[in-house]
Amino acid sequence: VIDWTARLARRARTTPDLIGGILALAGARDLINFSGGFPDPSLFATDVLGDLARKLIENDAAVALQYSSSEGIASTRAALADRLAATDGRRPADAELMVTSGGIDAITLIAKTMLDAGDVVVVEEPSYLGAVSGFMAFDPTLRGVPLDADGLDVEALAALLRTLPSPPKLVYTIPDFQNPSGHTLSVERRSALVDLCRRQGILIVEDVAYSQLGFDDAARPSLWSLGPDVVVQIGTFSKVFFPGVRLGWAVGPAAVVRQLSIAKQNSDQCAGALGQRMLEEYLRAGHLEQHLPVARALYRDRAAALTGALERHFDGLATWTVPRGGFFSWLRVPGVDTMALAEVARANKVAFVPGAGFFAEASDTEHLRLSYSRISESDIKEGVARLAAAVRSMRERQAS
Amino acid sequence: VIDWTARLARRARTTPDLIGGILALAGARDLINFSGGFPDPSLFATDVLGDLARKLIENDAAVALQYSSSEGIASTRAALADRLAATDGRRPADAELMVTSGGIDAITLIAKTMLDAGDVVVVEEPSYLGAVSGFMAFDPTLRGVPLDADGLDVEALAALLRTLPSPPKLVYTIPDFQNPSGHTLSVERRSALVDLCRRQGILIVEDVAYSQLGFDDAARPSLWSLGPDVVVQIGTFSKVFFPGVRLGWAVGPAAVVRQLSIAKQNSDQCAGALGQRMLEEYLRAGHLEQHLPVARALYRDRAAALTGALERHFDGLATWTVPRGGFFSWLRVPGVDTMALAEVARANKVAFVPGAGFFAEASDTEHLRLSYSRISESDIKEGVARLAAAVRSMRERQAS
Repeated sequence: VIDWTARLARRARTTPDLIGGILALAGARDLINFSGGFPDPSLFATDVLGDLARKLIENDAAVALQYSSSEGIASTRAALADRLAATDGRRPADAELMVTSGGIDAITLIAKTMLDAGDVVVVEEPSYLGAVSGFMAFDPTLRGVPLDADGLDVEALAALLRTLPSPPKLVYTIPDFQNPSGHTLSVERRSALVDLCRRQGILIVEDVAYSQLGFDDAARPSLWSLGPDVVVQIGTFSKVFFPGVRLGWAVGPAAVVRQLSIAKQNSDQCAGALGQRMLEEYLRAGHLEQHLPVARALYRDRAAALTGALERHFDGLATWTVPRGGFFSWLRVPGVDTMALAEVARANKVAFVPGAGFFAEASDTEHLRLSYSRISESDIKEGVARLAAAVRSMRERQAS
Repeated sequence: VIDWTARLARRARTTPDLIGGILALAGARDLINFSGGFPDPSLFATDVLGDLARKLIENDAAVALQYSSSEGIASTRAALADRLAATDGRRPADAELMVTSGGIDAITLIAKTMLDAGDVVVVEEPSYLGAVSGFMAFDPTLRGVPLDADGLDVEALAALLRTLPSPPKLVYTIPDFQNPSGHTLSVERRSALVDLCRRQGILIVEDVAYSQLGFDDAARPSLWSLGPDVVVQIGTFSKVFFPGVRLGWAVGPAAVVRQLSIAKQNSDQCAGALGQRMLEEYLRAGHLEQHLPVARALYRDRAAALTGALERHFDGLATWTVPRGGFFSWLRVPGVDTMALAEVARANKVAFVPGAGFFAEASDTEHLRLSYSRISESDIKEGVARLAAAVRSMRERQAS
C-alpha cells in the first residue's frame, strides 16, 4: 500500500483543517450550532427564486446553462456595477469588476495572483480563518495587527510597516462587523488606512461580507470608494442571497482584476452561469432591497437574544462583543482552553468555533466565536445556558 | 499611480492567458467558433431541469440553497457512487469520493495538495491546456511523454522515469478521446500504465471528461477501476449535464481525497448545493442514461460532418485525427504557424485554438484544435471552407 500522506505537498501536510469541522456541521440537527456564518434559511427567497430559476432554464438556457467568461456574464456584471453605485457611491468601470465563486474564491484568486513564497500579508488579529487559510496556501509570511472597538489600529500598522524591510504585498481587513470580533472600522481610520497604503503601494483587500447587514442606518464609506486605485473589495452573496450558488465579486484596479480573471481560469474557469443569471434577475427586480430590512431585523433580534443570554449566564465567566451587525459575537473566557471546551460543549449538544484559528501570529486559547445567525431565539437562550454549564464544569474540573 | 503589474506574483507575470480567449468567445455569435469544449445547448434538458430546480427551491431550500460540506452533499455523493458503479464497475467507499466544481477545480485541488515547487508532473504531449495551466500555478517541472493512436506511450514513460532522479508526483492522462488529439488509450496500455505507476508510487490523475461520449459501444476499463489504490479519477458534468452549474467529481485513495476536500475549503468552500441537488435528482430519475445516446448521436454526426469537410477542403493542406468520441479533431498544418493563422481566420469569421498551448515541453506551431460540438453541420462545412481559405491565403503570402 502506497503512503500517499508522505507524498503530499508541504502545504497540505502543514495546513490545519480549520473550516472542515464547521462545514461538516452545516447539516447537523442534533445540537445547537453556534459555528459557521450560515444565513438563516427562512430568509431564502423561495417564493420568487423557484419561478426565476425555471424561467431562466426555459428561456435563457444558451446563456444560463452554458460556460461563462471568467470575469462573469456581461449583463450580470452590469447589475453588480449598478448595485455598487447604490451601496458604495461609485460605479466601477467594466474592467474593474468581476464575478467570483464567493468570498473565499476571491481571496484565493488574490493570493494566487499576488503572493510569492515569503511575501508579507498583514491581517487583523484576530481575522477570518478562511482568509488566513486561503493566504497560507501560497506560503506567505503572515503578520498580525491589533484591532479594537474602532477596528484595525492604523497607527499600529504604520509602526509594523516601519519594521519591515519592504512593504507587504497585501493588507487584509474586514471593516464592517468584523469576523470574528464584530468590530467596525471608524470613518477616520478608513481614510488613514487608504492614505497609508497608497503612499507605500500596498494593495488593501477589503472584505465586505457582512457590510449590508448592519443593525442601524449609519453610512460608512467603503475603503474601495475611498481608494479605488489601491483597494480590491471582495464580497459574497452567500449572506444576503443564498450560498447554494457560489457567488461574490471583486472590484479594484483594472490591472489587478484582469489578473484575477486569468487566475480564475484555472480555479473553476467561471462562476456558475445559472446562479449569475438568477442573482442578476433578483437584483434587477429590486428583491434584494426589499429583502435586506427583513434580514437585518431578524439578525438584530437574534443578536439581542444572544447578548441577553450572555448577560444572564456568563456574568463573571467571560467578556464579549455586542454585535452592531453581522453574524458574530466574540467571547473571551479567561483561564479556559476553548479548544478543550469545544469537546465538553459537544457532549452538552452545543457547538462553536474555538478562537485559536483566527490568530495569525498571536497564540491565544481563551477566545471563541458564537454565530447567532441560524439559531432561533429560544435555542440561542438554551445554547448559551448549555455553554455556560460546559464552562463551569471545566472550571470545576480544573479546580479539583 | 501604482504599477500593480510590478507587484504581481511571479506565476501571474509568467502564466500565459491560454483559456481567456476561448471563454471570451463563449457567447460570440458573429463567427463560426471551433474553439472551446462547449456542449451544444440544444442538448440541455430544459424540459425537466426547470421544474426540477423550482421544486428543489420550494421544497428543499435548507439543503439546496445552503452551504454544503466541502466533500459534497452526502445524498449527492451517494448518487455519484451509484453512477460510478454503473460506468466503472466499482462503487467507491464514502471516503474515496468528493464533489468538485468541475474538472479544472479538481486539477487545481490536486496540484495544490500534491505539488511543491519543482516537483515533476508528467503530461501527455499534447495535453489539455487547462490542466497544464492548472498545474503550472504551483510551479512544478512539467515533462511530456508522446502519445500515438493507442494513447499515452507507456514504454516512453518508463524510459523517461529511468532518467529522473526520483519518481514524479503525478502522471496526468486523458485516456478516452483525448483533448486535444482525440486518441484513446488501448486496454493493454491501461494495465501497463497502472502497474508501472503502482510499482513506483506515482499518483495517476485520470481525466474522464469525454469518456461517456464515445461514438461506439466499446467498453474500456477506467484506470481508476484497474487501480483504485493509485489513480485519482476526475470528471466533469459540464459535457453531459450542463456547465452553468460547476460540477464534477474526484474519486481515488481516501488519503488523497480527504486532503482534496480540505484544499477545497480555501478554493470555493464547496460546490454549489443547488447544482448538486439538481444533478442528484437528474441522475436518480434516469435522465442521464436516456440523454447520453441522443448526445452521442448528435456529436457523432457533427464529427462526421467535420471529417467530411476536412477531406473536401484540406486534402494536401493538413492531416487530422478522426474522432471516435468527444468534441475534437487535431490538425497538423505543415509549414503554417497556427497562431498567425488564428488572426487570419478571425478576419474570415472563423475561430479555433492554436496548438502551441497544448504542449508542455515540445515547441510546436503547426497544430490546431477544432471543436465541432456546438456548431451546426452546415456551419461546420462553411467554417472548414473558410479555414482552408485562410490557410491558402497564408501560404500564398509566404510564397510571395
